[in-house]
Amino acid sequence: MSQQLVDRLIQELESIVLIDPHTHINPHAAASKTLADIMGYHYYTELAHSAGLERSRIEEPGLDPKEKVCRLVGWLGTIENTVQYSWLLEMCREFFDFHEERITPANWETLYDRAAAKMTASDWEAQVLRKSRLEQVFLTNDFDDPLSGFDTTRYVPCLRTDDLVFHLSKPAVRERLLEATGQGAGSAAQLVDAVGKLFAHFMKRGARACAISLPPDFEPVPVERSTVDPVLKALEGGREPSPDEARNVSRFVFWTLAEHCAEHRLPFDLMIGVNRRVYEEGVHQGQDLFDQRTSLIQYRRLFNAFPRVTFPISVLAQVSNQELVSYSWIFPNVVTNGHWWYSNIPAYIELDCRSRLQAVPQTKQIGYYSDMYKLEFALPKFRMYRRILASALASDFVIGRGWSESRAMELGRLVLRGNVERIFPLPR
Amino acid sequence: MSQQLVDRLIQELESIVLIDPHTHINPHAAASKTLADIMGYHYYTELAHSAGLERSRIEEPGLDPKEKVCRLVGWLGTIENTVQYSWLLEMCREFFDFHEERITPANWETLYDRAAAKMTASDWEAQVLRKSRLEQVFLTNDFDDPLSGFDTTRYVPCLRTDDLVFHLSKPAVRERLLEATGQGAGSAAQLVDAVGKLFAHFMKRGARACAISLPPDFEPVPVERSTVDPVLKALEGGREPSPDEARNVSRFVFWTLAEHCAEHRLPFDLMIGVNRRVYEEGVHQGQDLFDQRTSLIQYRRLFNAFPRVTFPISVLAQVSNQELVSYSWIFPNVVTNGHWWYSNIPAYIELDCRSRLQAVPQTKQIGYYSDMYKLEFALPKFRMYRRILASALASDFVIGRGWSESRAMELGRLVLRGNVERIFPLPR
Amino acid sequence: MSQQLVDRLIQELESIVLIDPHTHINPHAAASKTLADIMGYHYYTELAHSAGLERSRIEEPGLDPKEKVCRLVGWLGTIENTVQYSWLLEMCREFFDFHEERITPANWETLYDRAAAKMTASDWEAQVLRKSRLEQVFLTNDFDDPLSGFDTTRYVPCLRTDDLVFHLSKPAVRERLLEATGQGAGSAAQLVDAVGKLFAHFMKRGARACAISLPPDFEPVPVERSTVDPVLKALEGGREPSPDEARNVSRFVFWTLAEHCAEHRLPFDLMIGVNRRVYEEGVHQGQDLFDQRTSLIQYRRLFNAFPRVTFPISVLAQVSNQELVSYSWIFPNVVTNGHWWYSNIPAYIELDCRSRLQAVPQTKQIGYYSDMYKLEFALPKFRMYRRILASALASDFVIGRGWSESRAMELGRLVLRGNVERIFPLPR
Repeated sequence: MSQQLVDRLIQELESIVLIDPHTHINPHAAASKTLADIMGYHYYTELAHSAGLERSRIEEPGLDPKEKVCRLVGWLGTIENTVQYSWLLEMCREFFDFHEERITPANWETLYDRAAAKMTASDWEAQVLRKSRLEQVFLTNDFDDPLSGFDTTRYVPCLRTDDLVFHLSKPAVRERLLEATGQGAGSAAQLVDAVGKLFAHFMKRGARACAISLPPDFEPVPVERSTVDPVLKALEGGREPSPDEARNVSRFVFWTLAEHCAEHRLPFDLMIGVNRRVYEEGVHQGQDLFDQRTSLIQYRRLFNAFPRVTFPISVLAQVSNQELVSYSWIFPNVVTNGHWWYSNIPAYIELDCRSRLQAVPQTKQIGYYSDMYKLEFALPKFRMYRRILASALASDFVIGRGWSESRAMELGRLVLRGNVERIFPLPR
Repeated sequence: MSQQLVDRLIQELESIVLIDPHTHINPHAAASKTLADIMGYHYYTELAHSAGLERSRIEEPGLDPKEKVCRLVGWLGTIENTVQYSWLLEMCREFFDFHEERITPANWETLYDRAAAKMTASDWEAQVLRKSRLEQVFLTNDFDDPLSGFDTTRYVPCLRTDDLVFHLSKPAVRERLLEATGQGAGSAAQLVDAVGKLFAHFMKRGARACAISLPPDFEPVPVERSTVDPVLKALEGGREPSPDEARNVSRFVFWTLAEHCAEHRLPFDLMIGVNRRVYEEGVHQGQDLFDQRTSLIQYRRLFNAFPRVTFPISVLAQVSNQELVSYSWIFPNVVTNGHWWYSNIPAYIELDCRSRLQAVPQTKQIGYYSDMYKLEFALPKFRMYRRILASALASDFVIGRGWSESRAMELGRLVLRGNVERIFPLPR
Repeated sequence: MSQQLVDRLIQELESIVLIDPHTHINPHAAASKTLADIMGYHYYTELAHSAGLERSRIEEPGLDPKEKVCRLVGWLGTIENTVQYSWLLEMCREFFDFHEERITPANWETLYDRAAAKMTASDWEAQVLRKSRLEQVFLTNDFDDPLSGFDTTRYVPCLRTDDLVFHLSKPAVRERLLEATGQGAGSAAQLVDAVGKLFAHFMKRGARACAISLPPDFEPVPVERSTVDPVLKALEGGREPSPDEARNVSRFVFWTLAEHCAEHRLPFDLMIGVNRRVYEEGVHQGQDLFDQRTSLIQYRRLFNAFPRVTFPISVLAQVSNQELVSYSWIFPNVVTNGHWWYSNIPAYIELDCRSRLQAVPQTKQIGYYSDMYKLEFALPKFRMYRRILASALASDFVIGRGWSESRAMELGRLVLRGNVERIFPLPR
């Protein structure tokens, strides 16, 4: 396969202005302030920790950002093979004029200082957005986020619902819900009402998705109000639910969310397959893993019950990708969504990207999202994806099917940008 | 890897005359009569429906074939990336002199009419067979198929047994069995007798395989006659079986089929892993999906109990392919069989084909079957496979091991044709 | 991708002197004496049997080695596509000056005799080690192996513990334990004591790993001494344990082994996912298969409980590789280890190798082990791996990331050799 062909397609794909349909950006502090904001990304802390750096050295209370970077740099040598390290290097190259092969104990401080200087520019955030050709960024907002003080046409609210579905028995969550909605959750009716208020708030602020991450064994089914009423009442009284009761409440809340998505025509992003707190002594956000034994068959009742709700689906286990391809090929309301977390490495993206392009309607594929915490990450992550997409377009379409390059680019543009606009439409 | 080398191998593979060891061809109407026969293939209706075309528009009672094609054409733009669409285009190119890049609302009607004209030729079926280099076509026959009125040396009967194993409690199935065998199924002994009569009928008409598709959780084990006797009697009386009872009957019938395969030396094709009616509102034949959590370990008792029965095995989940490779490497009676349904796309075939060529005795691999409903599909589907096979032979054998091209072609010929003849021998 | 680049990297990788971190070598007869020692390797006997050679022809009591080879040669034609056959041919080429394309009934005898002649050289073992650039070979020793009579700096003892964990209820195993330790196992305390003695013995003889293979459904958790005490006592009395009791004993012994690994800082090799005796009529060592439905989540308690024990992990199912990558990326004490058995074929190694290089700290990857029974196998097996590694280094690092070749080679050297030394350190 001609490298020139691939390079031309990469160039074309690089010119597309992006909407990033899933991130963890804080819109009040979207860009980094120091290199510590970048290297504090959990991928680096967890990889360094996995290679031997003690958690206490990373998470020491009151640790100075520069000292934190210094400590992490000492372990970069162990992870420089990883694709995550290649993102770091690419950010340093593109944003901070760093042109060394490696970040080392000898050169990091100059880099740190230069980066810090650049980041003090009043328009740093705008610079990053421009250089990254990033037009809109979807957020991950807590259900009680006031959604104020930022430009919601650039930073698009999305209602994240893990707390509601899985932690409603925690007093803190119940209090936040009460605060946000002026509404208790002592009965099914009250809870449905509260959820309705959250949706109203989010819709008013231009929300374009509801989102949740789900454990491998979750199976959504409808639950009668009369089944959860006594449990919700008991929770109100401070009693711990039994595992069965907790599962019923989770299912009830989840189903209620889907009903509100239907009512508001809001897509419901499902991120399927994560087990939380598997490695209990891991660094912040570096404790989660998965069980590959999960199936989309668990969602059959959901997909059948809500034909009008679009479900953009991410799977954590790469072995789930074929199910995702097949379910998207069959169910009109199931859509493939990006390459999530442990599946977000080139060896897996390549296979997953090709299989989706080969078997899912082209209008039903959201190519990629960055999942980033700081704006600088969009550039290297999307670039990794663009390279892989270009390679798939070259081999399977231009060469394999004799398509013209411009036709292959139509497909690339759809997957990278067009579908995001259509699948997450602006609220009416 | 040199493209010329691959192209030479493709040319060689294209010259091999085929036996297609699994199809759904109706021998009384093997070729298409209009483009609606081709575009009515469930792959197209389900993909168009998945992309947004309403089922009622596709399955409207009394819908004119031309109007049906017109409606589907309107949605082809959404699925032209798929490999299934590429088959359609290739059929139109090869059979109907269509040389546009796309089938569109502007050009489809000319295509439709030209195709219809060609298909009226009295020797259309023969033309398709010749052009596709297709010598024999295995069928999928209902157990009560009279198997008469067609040339069974060209269209080879295969006894499909899903109804017997999974739907024996349905009155319609019981009546068909009674009609076909003159025999009730009110006891285990009667049922075994009836199955014996079906096998006798099929063997007399040159059947070369017994076949069945199985859900992911099926686990064949022997069941005592005394266990199913009361259930069969109750079924006779019109009582619905409990889930446990239904499972016992399924297992009993399945085991009985295997016993008859042993007696008649008939291979037993197992197509493992499909869940039926997952998407209840889907189009005809577009409702089935799967659960990747299945294992060939569920078949250990079967494989051990019937050393003389050859089991050509297809798996629906791509993640099952390694088990299939390993079980075929160990069990003399397990054979790899084609690339089924949701695994029948290039990204998965490539990996599956290579792993089989690398680790399963070359005499135990059936490379491909078309699974087609209409004859025209053999050409593009086998061509897709031939390209992938040529690429694997080039990279892993000619280049990787220094084999001569003619030696690589011996392997290709075996996998594509020779093994089909040996594994499904002509009845004695 | 330039083949010259790959070839240069292969050359460089070929020059690295190896430590083979997992084999089944008998240090008292490490090299082969005839071609029957090589072709008696279970891969060949099971593939030939799978292709049609009867077990009784292979395992006939008192069968002459030459006659055995003769019988196997008759079936080589059916398996010459396999990568295992390519190892055989490569051994014959490298060690026995065999330069035919195939081993056939016409040429095998000359080959057999020439090989036998070469193998009689008094320094044959040394010749093989030298030609294979093999410096150290880790063994798989029964727990009651005296570990004497061989050079333990060349042939490194490793304590294999399957018998202790899974077969302690067998009188023969209990007797061997008593013999080896002078200690019964009639109570938890006694058993812990006996295990301590085994570790002391192995550590004194320079052991560098404890190792075990585990079935797909094994889940290690701690078990109270008081729970197993009555079971151990009953075993002493000759009673068969119930499945639950047996599982508790297995878990107790396993946990005790992990505790001793922690005490002695010995890595604990886990080889996860094999079901024994699935094909009961299979040839010797050719009866085992697997169930892909397994997960490393089953080991969460173990990994959390023993942060100081390094667990080099091999997985049998290729679908488990992503979990292995992810768990190694998160848990400091989890390390990737080679490509085991049914995953040890190029199509799977390629994907697994690339994903590990892309996402696991480079210091936490043991690239390959031969798993060999006879020394001659290290050369072709490691060569297969080196080719794949060279290809991954070329595509993903030299080309994909612009690394220099020498830098890519640093990574190759680490994975192939450096990490073995660091992860299995010499005892203090």
